[in-house]
Amino acid sequence: MSNDPSTDSMTAESTVSLDAMNRPEPSPELDRLYADYARISTSPLWTQLDDLMPIVPSPKAIPYVWRWHDLLDIARRSGDLVPVGRGGERRAIGLANPGLAPTAYATPTLWCAIQYLGPHETAPEHRHAQNAFRFVVEGEGVWTVVNGDPVAMRRGDLLMTPGWAFHGHHNDTDQPMAWIDGLDVPFVHDMDFGFFEFGSERVTDEASPSVSRSERLWAHPGLTPLSAQDSQSSTPIAAYRWEFTDQALREQLKLEDEGHPATLEPGHAAIKYTNPTNGGDVLPTMRAEFHRLRAGAKTAVRHEVGSSVWQVFEGSGAIVLNGDRRELTKGDLFVVPSWIPWSLEAGTEFDLFRFSDAPIVERLNFQRVYLPESNRYLPGGRG
Amino acid sequence: MSNDPSTDSMTAESTVSLDAMNRPEPSPELDRLYADYARISTSPLWTQLDDLMPIVPSPKAIPYVWRWHDLLDIARRSGDLVPVGRGGERRAIGLANPGLAPTAYATPTLWCAIQYLGPHETAPEHRHAQNAFRFVVEGEGVWTVVNGDPVAMRRGDLLMTPGWAFHGHHNDTDQPMAWIDGLDVPFVHDMDFGFFEFGSERVTDEASPSVSRSERLWAHPGLTPLSAQDSQSSTPIAAYRWEFTDQALREQLKLEDEGHPATLEPGHAAIKYTNPTNGGDVLPTMRAEFHRLRAGAKTAVRHEVGSSVWQVFEGSGAIVLNGDRRELTKGDLFVVPSWIPWSLEAGTEFDLFRFSDAPIVERLNFQRVYLPESNRYLPGGRG
Amino acid sequence: MSNDPSTDSMTAESTVSLDAMNRPEPSPELDRLYADYARISTSPLWTQLDDLMPIVPSPKAIPYVWRWHDLLDIARRSGDLVPVGRGGERRAIGLANPGLAPTAYATPTLWCAIQYLGPHETAPEHRHAQNAFRFVVEGEGVWTVVNGDPVAMRRGDLLMTPGWAFHGHHNDTDQPMAWIDGLDVPFVHDMDFGFFEFGSERVTDEASPSVSRSERLWAHPGLTPLSAQDSQSSTPIAAYRWEFTDQALREQLKLEDEGHPATLEPGHAAIKYTNPTNGGDVLPTMRAEFHRLRAGAKTAVRHEVGSSVWQVFEGSGAIVLNGDRRELTKGDLFVVPSWIPWSLEAGTEFDLFRFSDAPIVERLNFQRVYLPESNRYLPGGRG
Amino acid sequence: MSNDPSTDSMTAESTVSLDAMNRPEPSPELDRLYADYARISTSPLWTQLDDLMPIVPSPKAIPYVWRWHDLLDIARRSGDLVPVGRGGERRAIGLANPGLAPTAYATPTLWCAIQYLGPHETAPEHRHAQNAFRFVVEGEGVWTVVNGDPVAMRRGDLLMTPGWAFHGHHNDTDQPMAWIDGLDVPFVHDMDFGFFEFGSERVTDEASPSVSRSERLWAHPGLTPLSAQDSQSSTPIAAYRWEFTDQALREQLKLEDEGHPATLEPGHAAIKYTNPTNGGDVLPTMRAEFHRLRAGAKTAVRHEVGSSVWQVFEGSGAIVLNGDRRELTKGDLFVVPSWIPWSLEAGTEFDLFRFSDAPIVERLNFQRVYLPESNRYLPGGRG
Repeated sequence: MSNDPSTDSMTAESTVSLDAMNRPEPSPELDRLYADYARISTSPLWTQLDDLMPIVPSPKAIPYVWRWHDLLDIARRSGDLVPVGRGGERRAIGLANPGLAPTAYATPTLWCAIQYLGPHETAPEHRHAQNAFRFVVEGEGVWTVVNGDPVAMRRGDLLMTPGWAFHGHHNDTDQPMAWIDGLDVPFVHDMDFGFFEFGSERVTDEASPSVSRSERLWAHPGLTPLSAQDSQSSTPIAAYRWEFTDQALREQLKLEDEGHPATLEPGHAAIKYTNPTNGGDVLPTMRAEFHRLRAGAKTAVRHEVGSSVWQVFEGSGAIVLNGDRRELTKGDLFVVPSWIPWSLEAGTEFDLFRFSDAPIVERLNFQRVYLPESNRYLPGGRG
Repeated sequence: MSNDPSTDSMTAESTVSLDAMNRPEPSPELDRLYADYARISTSPLWTQLDDLMPIVPSPKAIPYVWRWHDLLDIARRSGDLVPVGRGGERRAIGLANPGLAPTAYATPTLWCAIQYLGPHETAPEHRHAQNAFRFVVEGEGVWTVVNGDPVAMRRGDLLMTPGWAFHGHHNDTDQPMAWIDGLDVPFVHDMDFGFFEFGSERVTDEASPSVSRSERLWAHPGLTPLSAQDSQSSTPIAAYRWEFTDQALREQLKLEDEGHPATLEPGHAAIKYTNPTNGGDVLPTMRAEFHRLRAGAKTAVRHEVGSSVWQVFEGSGAIVLNGDRRELTKGDLFVVPSWIPWSLEAGTEFDLFRFSDAPIVERLNFQRVYLPESNRYLPGGRG
Repeated sequence: MSNDPSTDSMTAESTVSLDAMNRPEPSPELDRLYADYARISTSPLWTQLDDLMPIVPSPKAIPYVWRWHDLLDIARRSGDLVPVGRGGERRAIGLANPGLAPTAYATPTLWCAIQYLGPHETAPEHRHAQNAFRFVVEGEGVWTVVNGDPVAMRRGDLLMTPGWAFHGHHNDTDQPMAWIDGLDVPFVHDMDFGFFEFGSERVTDEASPSVSRSERLWAHPGLTPLSAQDSQSSTPIAAYRWEFTDQALREQLKLEDEGHPATLEPGHAAIKYTNPTNGGDVLPTMRAEFHRLRAGAKTAVRHEVGSSVWQVFEGSGAIVLNGDRRELTKGDLFVVPSWIPWSLEAGTEFDLFRFSDAPIVERLNFQRVYLPESNRYLPGGRG
Repeated sequence: MSNDPSTDSMTAESTVSLDAMNRPEPSPELDRLYADYARISTSPLWTQLDDLMPIVPSPKAIPYVWRWHDLLDIARRSGDLVPVGRGGERRAIGLANPGLAPTAYATPTLWCAIQYLGPHETAPEHRHAQNAFRFVVEGEGVWTVVNGDPVAMRRGDLLMTPGWAFHGHHNDTDQPMAWIDGLDVPFVHDMDFGFFEFGSERVTDEASPSVSRSERLWAHPGLTPLSAQDSQSSTPIAAYRWEFTDQALREQLKLEDEGHPATLEPGHAAIKYTNPTNGGDVLPTMRAEFHRLRAGAKTAVRHEVGSSVWQVFEGSGAIVLNGDRRELTKGDLFVVPSWIPWSLEAGTEFDLFRFSDAPIVERLNFQRVYLPESNRYLPGGRG
């Protein structure tokens, strides 16, 4: 077997399949040997190498698109039929990647659910080692109360619930509200890192301020309270408001128009939500980003180690996943499994929220990004 | 062995068991709703919360002991019957945790195998994103060639193969040799982070020096070459030799005898193998340690987040895993799944090698250590 | 003002004053010995220990107050009589600490000057290894152009010029403008770390936008451009605007009113200006802060390692330096040398800008803070 | 020796010398203005810019060589005439750079002294914020006791006394001993960062073991005690022994002979003494290195920001400082002020110890290295 780079050595992948070792002649001794592997709870590498250590990542999770109208419809029907309260804790309906059945995982690391809270309903308080956030594609009227701090949820906002922070939600209005939750539940579950604790049946502070105390203390550009100067493992900002995200993206595109470097690639503005105490990711396991493409723009095809979930926030366009083009419109969600090549195409101006397991990839030194169209690797990863 | 949370003070809350939400009355609408969840590839949280987010880690991996004589026996028989070479790559027989069947994983993150190389055999070169090391409990005569540097393998040595380093092994003697391999194969596989590339059919340098070039450059206490001052993600030392490990442990016990702080707890010496470029773990995903207990010593019971694999290097004693006591002797291996309480008891002086996924736990901020006998948490973790 | 150690519990030892060693009998041999020390360019420690290694820091810099009306008056007269241009480079008049004569240093590390630019004048471009910033206590109309990016200067703004960034200033109006410059000039000079290079005679971009490109890219709370994710040694934000500083301080005091932790001590709000790429200080050598005291508030007396310069931005009150109380009003500047005890007292609501060499102190592990009234050391320093 | 920038390509700009600003016509008003600058404790930048902010570093410290026979002779005579004891504390004779008179500083940051202890003499214990080490070019028989741990001092050893560690020395033999001390005394003094405290009149542990407890715990290659895993600001290794330094250097040259990368440049082996808890420098303010040149080797000329002190340990050769060549032999010391070009030439095999203020330079982001012969800057610095 040769590792022929001419066919793109990285992705020749699976065509160069890993054959088993020169197979021995069948014999009774060999049969006994194979039986004994299992008897003493062992298993030989050479019977499983192809699956276990593929040439390039070969994810079970598949590229997949969920439609917002389907999700919103089923969330509403769940709201009518299934009460929320202690025990079930949340009326959250997870995106179940068909490649990962029977789990309800979006990717091997990421959980994503639509959560729905009817008028004046409360989701009781609890806390868990799992890190969480919420992102709002439409609606308002719910306050998530994080360690006692009520945080208004509005369209375009990203709301943080770091691991082990108590949190509950209450709907202060006569209208239902739906949003998406992102968590590292699959990762924490499969690694056996999780803890869970119940809290108050009702939220501990039922006030409904337009900004949280955490924002009043921390959400000032480049300014931090002198009373809290240590680096914190998760962001202390509970809400990243849409007005700031929108403004940051708009300015990137304007700067591009004026001839200055600002965008990620032509016509493609993007921001990372960061932890102001250290400039790093908002959560130890999850990165959150927001992308805006100009109408007609197209991103370079990328292979990236690690998986991500995207939601269209506004506009329409398409995602090309492993060569398959899928049209997208407001609220639609899709997953990009590890190393699956992807690119975005904007019909109208096209706004998308993204979260990924990039901190896991990068803190453990597995990062690689490959751009097949220009046949190059980005710096910072092995290639 | 059961993981009974009722004996665990931190799980007092767990008496409030996670019931399902107030269940709605059965109805055709409800049936249609549940059918539609699956139809649009979704799954409600409230049907799976107990399993998905337990009160404390509830690992599928079970505490388990493998006997060295069983492993060595089956490795020898494999040596007689199964050739080694390109395709199967290695004559490695993995420890298959019965709780994780049908995989051959030792824990959700760690792979551990006994590898066997007959007289004058060669395991061909390859490289992979997975990080690896070898630990030798007996024998000698094999050289592992890491990025072209031949590294002798002898009893008590820890040999490193960081991710993406080319490596092969060759037996330079008339005797077979067996050792254990440790890798982050389960983690990398399940996360879809892995890459693999074939290399030379034979090792690229067949010399058999007693020390590797990497040791000559890097294995001097507190001294590093001025020509290579950047922090490196994996250790540049290819071999941690037994004589140094033994001496470090012996000195800790002598210092304890003289009344000075040195040991981890009374009668329990322990070292961490470290990366001299930054003082951190040898590999981005795996920690390696060596422990020595005085005859008769017993360690405090501990719950720790994350899993580990241990091998007895010398002496005899016992491991108590979740209350079950198992006798151990030279070469025996056992796994400690996440949060399973464990303690060691030394019969004779008792030497053990350990490796774990602690860097994954700690870099992603999930660390907790709980000492039930004194009902306290160690600093640095949430509690 | 004297730095009386007898009032300081940590200096109890200082009653044992540092005498010279048991002095030898005078003799011709001894005379020759002392002559020979000098002859071979050496000097014995025992003749200089008291001065060289005092019990607590014994700064030559003295606590000192400069009056804004004096500074503004002399800056205007300089504007009338002394042209600005290539060679002298800046019409900047440095605060010369009387204890540090004949230098014009404010402290051993910090330079502070009032700079004055007449109508339509230009200070030509240059760059230097020294880090710099400007702070505006009154006026507007000048643009500082930093690496080609025009940055408007307005009352309350902090404008950054990191080391080796080209910069020039031009006054776009018919009015003169004055502001203060802060630099690490004494440190860089005395350490011999400095480089200097001339640039354009005129500013390279004479536009006069209300916000700089750097702000448009970077000054969004918790959001950073995805195109620039590496940690940078100096902040990429060229201007920290007064509206955000004011809002952050106002919110801290409101949160305190509401019963939540936010202020540094009762009635004392304070923010640190930070580098959004890593959450650290804006410049490698200088920390910048803004403090607001409620009318009537008084800060705890502090001894701190390292020196700082303060400017009153608004309101009136007093600074007590080593027991001496000095009244302060808008624009007044004062220095706090290392370890000199200080506290602030607010008459009206009292706003002050501060910069210090805290990054030098902390990155090199010399930090100590001592609160004599409660006889305790703050964490993080030796005591 | 002159620091002629005209020979330095990076200073091409320096031909545009820094003239004063277009000078105004003399007038009574101007006289009054200049008088008033001083009256209100200010000083205009334009009268001092050339000296204050030169084109390249223009150190007052001069390149200088001290002869070991001179130093040893005067140390012996001091031993005969000047007692050691409380008050004077140490019989240490500092190298006084003629350019820095009247101080006894070797460079603006570094103190270097020869210390001498007669038979059975004791230098009493004290501690100070200043960081210190000792290096032994010949002799043995003294133990330095650091925080109660007796540390034998022998030829070729580097002995550490981090800031605020209690320490005293005692000579356990009938022979005197001399060695060099290195401290950050000038830096700490001029920055006003220093604290000092007296300790025991005699050393607290008069034992004379051949290795210290710190070595027994920490000086094992790549192995650290599991009981002490946090990063420490100074190295916990009290003694770096000659046998390891020598071996590391010898191996680098052998690896070079075998064709492998190991040396800093051809024929030039070099190691850095490091802190095993983080891989960084041994002390927060000082770097320590050891260099070995093959007979006949010559190093590339370098300009470096920051200053250093060197001592010849063995062999003979020359140092070229700013173009002036000086012969060197065993024990001779010399200083390289900031940015002064230097290169070494080996007559015999040539061993040199070096310490520098590189951690100050690098932690505060002032690093630049320029190689004039190849007209290039090394990575990591501005250029």
